[in-house]
Amino acid sequence: MPRHRRRTSSDFESESETEIGTMKCLSCREDYESRDSGTCKECYEEASETEEELKREIDDLKAKVAFLRFWAPLDHHHHQRFSPCFTDVVLVAAADESGKPAANPVPVPAHKAVLASRSPVFRAMLENEMEESLSGTIKISDVSYDALRNFVNYLYTAEACLDELMACDLLVLAEKYQVKHLKTYCEKFMVSKLNWENSLLNYAFAHQHNAKNLLDAAMSLILDNMDKLSKREEYMELVERDPRLVVEIYEAYLSRQVNTAAPKDSSTKA
Amino acid sequence: MPRHRRRTSSDFESESETEIGTMKCLSCREDYESRDSGTCKECYEEASETEEELKREIDDLKAKVAFLRFWAPLDHHHHQRFSPCFTDVVLVAAADESGKPAANPVPVPAHKAVLASRSPVFRAMLENEMEESLSGTIKISDVSYDALRNFVNYLYTAEACLDELMACDLLVLAEKYQVKHLKTYCEKFMVSKLNWENSLLNYAFAHQHNAKNLLDAAMSLILDNMDKLSKREEYMELVERDPRLVVEIYEAYLSRQVNTAAPKDSSTKA
Repeated sequence: MPRHRRRTSSDFESESETEIGTMKCLSCREDYESRDSGTCKECYEEASETEEELKREIDDLKAKVAFLRFWAPLDHHHHQRFSPCFTDVVLVAAADESGKPAANPVPVPAHKAVLASRSPVFRAMLENEMEESLSGTIKISDVSYDALRNFVNYLYTAEACLDELMACDLLVLAEKYQVKHLKTYCEKFMVSKLNWENSLLNYAFAHQHNAKNLLDAAMSLILDNMDKLSKREEYMELVERDPRLVVEIYEAYLSRQVNTAAPKDSSTKA
Repeated sequence: MPRHRRRTSSDFESESETEIGTMKCLSCREDYESRDSGTCKECYEEASETEEELKREIDDLKAKVAFLRFWAPLDHHHHQRFSPCFTDVVLVAAADESGKPAANPVPVPAHKAVLASRSPVFRAMLENEMEESLSGTIKISDVSYDALRNFVNYLYTAEACLDELMACDLLVLAEKYQVKHLKTYCEKFMVSKLNWENSLLNYAFAHQHNAKNLLDAAMSLILDNMDKLSKREEYMELVERDPRLVVEIYEAYLSRQVNTAAPKDSSTKA
């Protein structure tokens, strides 16, 4: 195919440029032929403007997030601000790193106003002058100090440094204290780490903690690998521990087969 | 210009589609000719993906803002939450709506932690256990109750309902308490309301409160209308009140003339 093929201006004078074979892309500056054409000039210019506008909006929103973000009382980068930051409550992890009840738990300082603003559970607890509000201490059971610190930090900053274990721990806390934004955040992370190896464990975990997005993603992965399912160790364990969850997998499998068979021709997996 | 002009397949077999005169834009679905071509297909698809990604990022950031946004203690929509929201300080406007010192000022409740987090001036005031911290009352001079309420509300929500007067009031407060985000917000609003009629007042105001963006925009508008400048009433007043500001206008005018004259040919305005 000829690149840069141009006719002389004497050819087909009346049609001038309309039949030139190659054009220069305004974005990548490469020549292309009409079969590879994308948009007209007007739409290209409009799209460029839209992109600029979206980027400006993103900058504005990022500035807003930075403004609204709190320094958490236990943020390591701002330890010098630790002492006088007007905290009026502490949270205490009722289990240490290994899961045993902590002997001398390190309290995580916080503000009632922040807790109440981020979690309806904390709000009810604190506004109704329950024991926690009066004593100024909120005990959080079944959680490590590390997870609790990360949880509180998230309430101030909307950010957390996750690995797969921390994502589980924080999702559990997010579910318990109804912090939707954190739950979505953890689910997204866990979905991104999903694979066939961990899909059954994630499926059971998602079921237990009403994590719909994670559940759907894990279920979909399981259904794509039904032929290998019953050989997995986690499968046997799940049949033993919670057979209803296994039933749900088979029900979903059957329903998928029926649905894909009905409209098209039957192309079911073996 | 022929639209939909297609050659029969027998013409120039070897070049097949490369010389077809019109193409269909993948964005607006209209036909166009090569002279109006924008991008190649690949760049179009890439740009569409980028746009989707930017929109997702915007959604994420908006959710983050919603999560981080506080309900302000005096937010009218959430009045039921007014009483038990753990405020530990009140702000008091030292002037009423008409600018006179208020006899019985209505206090605006707030949290020391929020004030300190949003404004380095409040932080210094509160952390150093100055009078304000000990008494739990911060007096704000030269401000109406309405402006103070809007100011505090902005510290919690990063939002304000502005008109031109309120934008001025909040900009002054933002400058005084070093709340950069609010200052930018007010400046943007005021720049959007700039016109020749209010440019001199805005210029003087921006000068007084170090509002660089507003100053530049107002100055630029003034320089575009130098021939009408000396006839304006505000001009005479400014010469009277602060002649140095007028000198700066003339200096900028001269500098613009020299700069535009030097590189190109002299095309100065009359």
